[in-house]
Amino acid sequence: MNLLLATRNAHKTAEFAQILGGEFIVSDLRSLPDALEVEETGNTFEENAMRKAVAASRLTKMLVVADDSGLEVEALGGAPGIRSARYAGENATDAENVAKLLAKLDSVSDAPEAKARFYCALAIARHGEAICTVAGEVRGKIIRQARGNNGFGYDPVFVPEGFEETFAALPVETKNAISHRARAIAALRNYLQQLAAKA
Amino acid sequence: MNLLLATRNAHKTAEFAQILGGEFIVSDLRSLPDALEVEETGNTFEENAMRKAVAASRLTKMLVVADDSGLEVEALGGAPGIRSARYAGENATDAENVAKLLAKLDSVSDAPEAKARFYCALAIARHGEAICTVAGEVRGKIIRQARGNNGFGYDPVFVPEGFEETFAALPVETKNAISHRARAIAALRNYLQQLAAKA
Repeated sequence: MNLLLATRNAHKTAEFAQILGGEFIVSDLRSLPDALEVEETGNTFEENAMRKAVAASRLTKMLVVADDSGLEVEALGGAPGIRSARYAGENATDAENVAKLLAKLDSVSDAPEAKARFYCALAIARHGEAICTVAGEVRGKIIRQARGNNGFGYDPVFVPEGFEETFAALPVETKNAISHRARAIAALRNYLQQLAAKA
Repeated sequence: MNLLLATRNAHKTAEFAQILGGEFIVSDLRSLPDALEVEETGNTFEENAMRKAVAASRLTKMLVVADDSGLEVEALGGAPGIRSARYAGENATDAENVAKLLAKLDSVSDAPEAKARFYCALAIARHGEAICTVAGEVRGKIIRQARGNNGFGYDPVFVPEGFEETFAALPVETKNAISHRARAIAALRNYLQQLAAKA
């Protein structure tokens, strides 16, 4: 089965290809001449992912998959949520977003740790029409001192459940085995295998 | 195709059967001897719907669909959201929930209207495994004076976009044609037809 990912990020595409396995041929927007401009105006990860998937599916006959993901901190009512990448402003750096997160946490709690999760929604579309979404999460906690140099985003302050180290300090293979995106891709694989079994 | 709805609500089952049409045979939990107890501990409508769908799918070999829905008010940061049915407490009446909503709105704004939407997620599962979710929404506004006697929940204070009357004052057929649940069921029908076309 041929899949188009609505991304230009080669690392992301490689992660999908690796988890989906040999029965799925994965390409991405780098294979298309057209640029894709989609505003992330949805209220949920699912809606933002679906906007991207539907828009990209107008450019190809392939089944299209798009992702949207972020961090939700319980003590902050789920913030930064869908605004994770632009929490400290439209072009905020990872360091600025992390700094804002820790400042917000300081303003609501003295506790050294805060319950949080990373969440990833994947939306599937074809021929300009929404099909459905799948999702994955990894629960853990936010710590106040950044640790580690791997990954990106909030990885340096996120410690997944069952581990002592942050996503940025854990080996990349470990993160990629338990991450919200890995789990969402595994859910996608289940979904696609059901679809393929029906074909 | 046979579908089991994870509900005991005959009205809901009739709405699904009507929108899905003759090619889908819809039954619900009333046809099963076992009671289904599922805690709605998810963070999103999708997660709560999926918990119900997966739990029910352990009781049958059929494809199972479960729903979760609610009202999101922009000025309240998306509240009452997944807590819509229990906004004023675990066993709150519709009137108590509406009263709390209007009081909250009064506390944040003097504007006579507040942007809002109803959202419905449907989750699909089989054999105890999550498959995917679809969703529907209807945008509109909350008004401060309840009007109409149809429907339930927040219907008396919700005016859908393009209409002058609340969901509770509009004819039932009108609400059922444009509601978040109707749109989610239409998305489900698209999904199932794709699935059936593959079979």
